[in-house]
Amino acid sequence: MRTLDLLFGRPLATSEERAEQIGPPAGIPIFGLDALSSAAYGPEAALTLLIPLGLVGVHYIVPVSFAIIGLLIIVYFSYRQTIEAYPQGGGSYTVATENLGAGPGLLAAAALMIDYILTAAVGISAGVGALISAVPSLHRHTLLLCLGILALLTIINLRGVRDTGVAFLVPTYLFLGTLLIVIVLGIYHSFADGGHPVPVVASPALPRATTALTWWLLLKVFSSGCTAMTGVEAVSNGVMAFRPPTAKNAKITLTIIIAFLIVLLAGIALLCRAYGIGATDPASPGYQSVLSQLTAAVAGKGIFYYTTIGSILLVLSLSANTAFADFPRLARAIALHDYLPHVFILRGRRLLFSHGIVALVIFTAALLILFGGVTDRLIPLYAIGAFLAFTLSQAGMVVHWHKQGNATGRMLVNGIGAIATGVTLLVVLVAKFLDGAWVTAILVPALILVMTFVRKHYEQTARETDSPEPLCIEDLHPPHVILPVDKWNRISEKGLRFALTMSPDVQVVHVDFGDEEKEGSIGQIWENLILKPIRAAGLTEPRLVMIRSPYRSFAQPLVEHILAEQKKIGDRQIAVLVPELVVKHWYENLLHNQRANLLKLILLVKGNERVIVVNIPWYLHQ
Amino acid sequence: MRTLDLLFGRPLATSEERAEQIGPPAGIPIFGLDALSSAAYGPEAALTLLIPLGLVGVHYIVPVSFAIIGLLIIVYFSYRQTIEAYPQGGGSYTVATENLGAGPGLLAAAALMIDYILTAAVGISAGVGALISAVPSLHRHTLLLCLGILALLTIINLRGVRDTGVAFLVPTYLFLGTLLIVIVLGIYHSFADGGHPVPVVASPALPRATTALTWWLLLKVFSSGCTAMTGVEAVSNGVMAFRPPTAKNAKITLTIIIAFLIVLLAGIALLCRAYGIGATDPASPGYQSVLSQLTAAVAGKGIFYYTTIGSILLVLSLSANTAFADFPRLARAIALHDYLPHVFILRGRRLLFSHGIVALVIFTAALLILFGGVTDRLIPLYAIGAFLAFTLSQAGMVVHWHKQGNATGRMLVNGIGAIATGVTLLVVLVAKFLDGAWVTAILVPALILVMTFVRKHYEQTARETDSPEPLCIEDLHPPHVILPVDKWNRISEKGLRFALTMSPDVQVVHVDFGDEEKEGSIGQIWENLILKPIRAAGLTEPRLVMIRSPYRSFAQPLVEHILAEQKKIGDRQIAVLVPELVVKHWYENLLHNQRANLLKLILLVKGNERVIVVNIPWYLHQ
Repeated sequence: MRTLDLLFGRPLATSEERAEQIGPPAGIPIFGLDALSSAAYGPEAALTLLIPLGLVGVHYIVPVSFAIIGLLIIVYFSYRQTIEAYPQGGGSYTVATENLGAGPGLLAAAALMIDYILTAAVGISAGVGALISAVPSLHRHTLLLCLGILALLTIINLRGVRDTGVAFLVPTYLFLGTLLIVIVLGIYHSFADGGHPVPVVASPALPRATTALTWWLLLKVFSSGCTAMTGVEAVSNGVMAFRPPTAKNAKITLTIIIAFLIVLLAGIALLCRAYGIGATDPASPGYQSVLSQLTAAVAGKGIFYYTTIGSILLVLSLSANTAFADFPRLARAIALHDYLPHVFILRGRRLLFSHGIVALVIFTAALLILFGGVTDRLIPLYAIGAFLAFTLSQAGMVVHWHKQGNATGRMLVNGIGAIATGVTLLVVLVAKFLDGAWVTAILVPALILVMTFVRKHYEQTARETDSPEPLCIEDLHPPHVILPVDKWNRISEKGLRFALTMSPDVQVVHVDFGDEEKEGSIGQIWENLILKPIRAAGLTEPRLVMIRSPYRSFAQPLVEHILAEQKKIGDRQIAVLVPELVVKHWYENLLHNQRANLLKLILLVKGNERVIVVNIPWYLHQ
Repeated sequence: MRTLDLLFGRPLATSEERAEQIGPPAGIPIFGLDALSSAAYGPEAALTLLIPLGLVGVHYIVPVSFAIIGLLIIVYFSYRQTIEAYPQGGGSYTVATENLGAGPGLLAAAALMIDYILTAAVGISAGVGALISAVPSLHRHTLLLCLGILALLTIINLRGVRDTGVAFLVPTYLFLGTLLIVIVLGIYHSFADGGHPVPVVASPALPRATTALTWWLLLKVFSSGCTAMTGVEAVSNGVMAFRPPTAKNAKITLTIIIAFLIVLLAGIALLCRAYGIGATDPASPGYQSVLSQLTAAVAGKGIFYYTTIGSILLVLSLSANTAFADFPRLARAIALHDYLPHVFILRGRRLLFSHGIVALVIFTAALLILFGGVTDRLIPLYAIGAFLAFTLSQAGMVVHWHKQGNATGRMLVNGIGAIATGVTLLVVLVAKFLDGAWVTAILVPALILVMTFVRKHYEQTARETDSPEPLCIEDLHPPHVILPVDKWNRISEKGLRFALTMSPDVQVVHVDFGDEEKEGSIGQIWENLILKPIRAAGLTEPRLVMIRSPYRSFAQPLVEHILAEQKKIGDRQIAVLVPELVVKHWYENLLHNQRANLLKLILLVKGNERVIVVNIPWYLHQ
């Protein structure tokens, strides 16, 4: 366990839980990283779609960004109210389930799960993508770099949330600090130069316009830009991670995160227009990210530039951490309602829901491998899940306040939120359906089907096994014991001794392959070595049965024999004793037990209620 | 099992074994494919090294080929004697072990295993390589094609050797037939045109000489050419596959194979010199194989050309089949001496050693994936194994005849063989060490280490478990039974009922996580639902034990408790009853039994002789 401790930290007792809780300064990096880092790809995603409009297109980024900021403010007020109403953690799933019912709750659950997985995948791939634009020679290792960062995040998160906060504090504040300096400096120069600042390092010239603006294009630009809003729900999901006063600390954290995000989005949009900076083709070798162009234009390509780019890279890949904080909590909440396997309820050594982390890692790795770690192919799937969850959560809050009574103002706030995000959801779905939103549109119902199946399965199991009845003690008979023996040795002796303690009704079975004539075979020694001492002790004699197996298979005829015996004896139970060699090193298992394992497997599959397998372990070399 | 039958043929009983045996016409494709197809890459490998000598180099292929043919004739006479002496199958491993002892036997075993795996890998990759030179658009699917052919061969071989013979008959005889026609026609033209025949289709011009001949280069050319000899030992390994008179049929088969191989090697060498045909750079896009140039020069590029090339492609990839016939037999022979896991001894449904086939497929696939299916990178590792085995086998035969006495002539034949192949082995090792032979030089001792470990392990196991003693019936007590119970339901009731039949000494254990307060928990219902009926029946009361688990782990504290109990009761056995849900579909396992499986695993690892696990199955939905 020493190595585990070193890697993942020592286990924490339930009573230590309190000590894991955090305040706003630590909460901002943990729950805000995803929302804040969205500023690094949201505006760029919108600008990429504006490339065909040339210099004119850059001007449209300002109204689009302010529309997104407006939506963001609505969502902010909605979530403040959620935090207040659900201090124990009010994720969309909880809010939708409690207020709208099981169906909408499942919809929210599916949407959120997909959203978190994409948060992790996009965060990592965007970070690696930025790294690759800086160091093009790493390009061919894209996927490997993605998986490496995923592995690093896994280790950090299996250690626990507090250490995570410390590890993510510096990069987040560096990211915020450098970008704020860029924005302040840039706006100062804009004013000083009368709205037309001179860039320190000029950006690539914008291409000539090849198309005119259409409403359809504007909808797509808005939809892409909305990825800048992903992640703002993280605080409301994780309220219980804050130290008391819990709700207040959470609200302060949310306010700071949203305020910074608004400054970033507005600043980036205004400076892009002022400096005439647009996106460059992500596929071309001359690609340069919008934030890289902006920093170089405002501050030149010195140490400050590289610090800024470095912190962007770091924060982008670490933003995936929001998913690591929230996905396991969500999986646990769903499993508590029997919609996901119960392993997600169990907490691991460090008070975290380790199984959820492992599941997230598997799905994220699958997405990264499937899409080759390319952000461009992941982005279109992304916003759907987030906005579906926003809408359901706020609609749920409306019902919540309605039930409470006397809260018309609050109902109104959440109602506006629900309508605004619901309309946005429809816009995104329509505008980006062919670009990839259809994948999410298929995955959501698929996940709902799986969760419904899991719930049904647990319900059926409970119906079959639940029993408020007292113990029935009728018909308690010793079982009919069957002991397969290959040859007589100390292992079969141990098995036979245990058989004799279990029941007076013991049968020793030998499978004869027809092509072997061994000395000292069980038939030859049966009388002298086995029956003689048993008779001497006055015990009931076991019976020896030989099974011919002309096809040299071992487990098949043995199982057939056992099931035939079971039919003969009716309701009584059969105990099959399976000797098993226990080795010191795992690789030694390759040398033993293949027959025993096969026998146990076939017995389990073909057997029934009345066949019980008893493992007789034989420890080698001890 | 229906699908299995369709794919792999119905199972065969031991009594049907005779019917699987074959005569020379079927034996030539099965055991000769590898040796004969070597003619397609052996001479070309030699000629590739002669490229820097230009047209002059082509002339050296004749003496080098005749040196190889001389060596081949020596080896032929040696193996005739092996077949006679070992009609039950005289592979190098058997011969070396029986005559030289265990050490040299292991050396032969390791060499042969590596050689067979490389036979399969090179056969497949060379076949695919030829296909790719014909259809360049397939180039990027090289590895996929290799693995596809490997899968096909696996299915054919799991069906059994007779069907294999039929499947391989046509391509082999087509290959032999077309190449013999090319050689006869070519030699006729050479004589008709006074030694300087006019090619129907001219070959690419040979490059200008850039270097002069050195002895070192000649050694490397000879070493590369020696890959033309790989596979000639196949008949002597598989003698027992022939129908009686077994040895005679095997010798006839070997004679025909060697005769054809000599004609092919001599013919190719002479025609290359007569037509001035050399190898082309395998890496360049203008690559054309030597046999393709030769066929085009002699017969033009008509239907005959494509038939010839097609049969070469087919036979090259099918040559891997020799390894499928011999590797499992070799693995079985080694396993019979306890040097490999015993699964290799068990025969599968079709009288074949299926586990050996599976092992070969895994290793071959690994080699193909590792080297990307590129023949060029595999060839240098190839000859070492074969010549090491040749040498050991023939040295063994010398000792064999010496023991028999009165066989000086035969001793001399095998002695010459041993010296000739031993010297060749040294030449190949030195000449090709840096090109890749060093890989084999590392793998051989590694395999020997593994085999020695396996043998030691089986010996130690046998020492610990073998017992000629009669059954000891002293101290037969019912075990102390421990039943972990989460909550009271029909599953725990079944477990408790079984526990009561096993022993009067039963303990029910509940792990309490400290953060749950359930209604109807085991502590609350214990008195009424469990103790009351037991008392009424006059049975011994079980004891209820609650274990606190502050770290929420389940299996760890339970195992600690079980081991502590075991220490208390001393020599008596503890039976741990583990209820297990048996589901209808495999995927339902994801929802259950995680705790049970973990408990069983930890019990096995941390437990001891006196802890026995009893699986109580509960079948869901039946």
